[in-house]
Amino acid sequence: MTSTTPLSPSGRSTLGRLHERGRADRADLYAVLDAGLVCHFGFVADGAPVVLPAGYGRLGDTIYVHGSSGARWLRSSEMPACLTVTHLDGIVYARSVFHFSMNYRSAVVHGTARLVTDETERRDSLRAIVEHLAPGSWEHARTPSRRELAATAVLSMDLSEASVKVRSGPPKDDEEDLTDEVWAGVVPVLPTFGAPVPDEHVPAGRAVPEHVTRR
Amino acid sequence: MTSTTPLSPSGRSTLGRLHERGRADRADLYAVLDAGLVCHFGFVADGAPVVLPAGYGRLGDTIYVHGSSGARWLRSSEMPACLTVTHLDGIVYARSVFHFSMNYRSAVVHGTARLVTDETERRDSLRAIVEHLAPGSWEHARTPSRRELAATAVLSMDLSEASVKVRSGPPKDDEEDLTDEVWAGVVPVLPTFGAPVPDEHVPAGRAVPEHVTRR
Repeated sequence: MTSTTPLSPSGRSTLGRLHERGRADRADLYAVLDAGLVCHFGFVADGAPVVLPAGYGRLGDTIYVHGSSGARWLRSSEMPACLTVTHLDGIVYARSVFHFSMNYRSAVVHGTARLVTDETERRDSLRAIVEHLAPGSWEHARTPSRRELAATAVLSMDLSEASVKVRSGPPKDDEEDLTDEVWAGVVPVLPTFGAPVPDEHVPAGRAVPEHVTRR
Repeated sequence: MTSTTPLSPSGRSTLGRLHERGRADRADLYAVLDAGLVCHFGFVADGAPVVLPAGYGRLGDTIYVHGSSGARWLRSSEMPACLTVTHLDGIVYARSVFHFSMNYRSAVVHGTARLVTDETERRDSLRAIVEHLAPGSWEHARTPSRRELAATAVLSMDLSEASVKVRSGPPKDDEEDLTDEVWAGVVPVLPTFGAPVPDEHVPAGRAVPEHVTRR
């Protein structure tokens, strides 16, 4: 797949409602996924859905999540899954409560989550997950030991079936409400990074490295 | 239920891994839910999980999500569901990649989502959802017409089965890595609100109302 391969909408990844918010480019999918830090990973256990937050990383058209190899949800070698990443960009204040909304970008990936067993892919995917969370860190920190690798499970999903939705811009009030005296507009939501806080073992006066301050 | 009623852990809401991150107080559940703006709502369609972002509101021990009454996922009168709210508070840089982590607070609610049909509950829940998203707005904006109410579906879930997880603080590196020269600590993540942007119909010079600036 390339960035111009369509998101190949199946029935479930074809947007029913508000399809004008849909995006059809693979590049839009990559952009939403790459800008996030936490995904919400859904699976089915005993017939009921379970949605858990997780870190993730992407390599080409595969997305990876990881966790402890002891975690119940990471014990299946293969299972139907849904992985969603959402960015909240703003709160949309309208003149009628019906038109209150959020500005957001979201990507929903449908498919099968598979336990990664190939040792090279496991290592590459863990690197992608750590680099996604904390760019530049893999080369600065100690890499995983054999024991640590064994304690880590990685699931992969391919990005062949996904949908992207984006809402942006001002409220869409009804014509007849525009005469109202109600304030309407958008309050932007901006995720920001605070100043890095070293732990107690970092020598006093030690500079924060560039790959951390770059955030 | 009161704020001291336990979160009544069932099998699935009992934390398996890292149970030291678990919180057992109902007040912790309320705090995580009330501090969020977007939830991730999971359900099962044709045997596969679907996870969608949604706005929500809480009234006592009931949580509500809403959407268009035309949306496919809002057409069931009752279905197994999972509703998760996650706050990312920081990126945890460790001395070994194995101990990289996130500081976060998350609440996972398991149970049955029911379509709200009682008109009073529908109205009260929509008010709770709008007030959760944009406090103070219900009294300022035009309330829903009969047609708008008909176009809106609301689902409820009760908060009887839920789990709360919190990770905070510095990295937990292995003793033998503490001699390393690697910087370790936390980069805080702070969701912030930007300056309100009025839409084109707001008269120039009109002050932003207090219930909006209060954010």
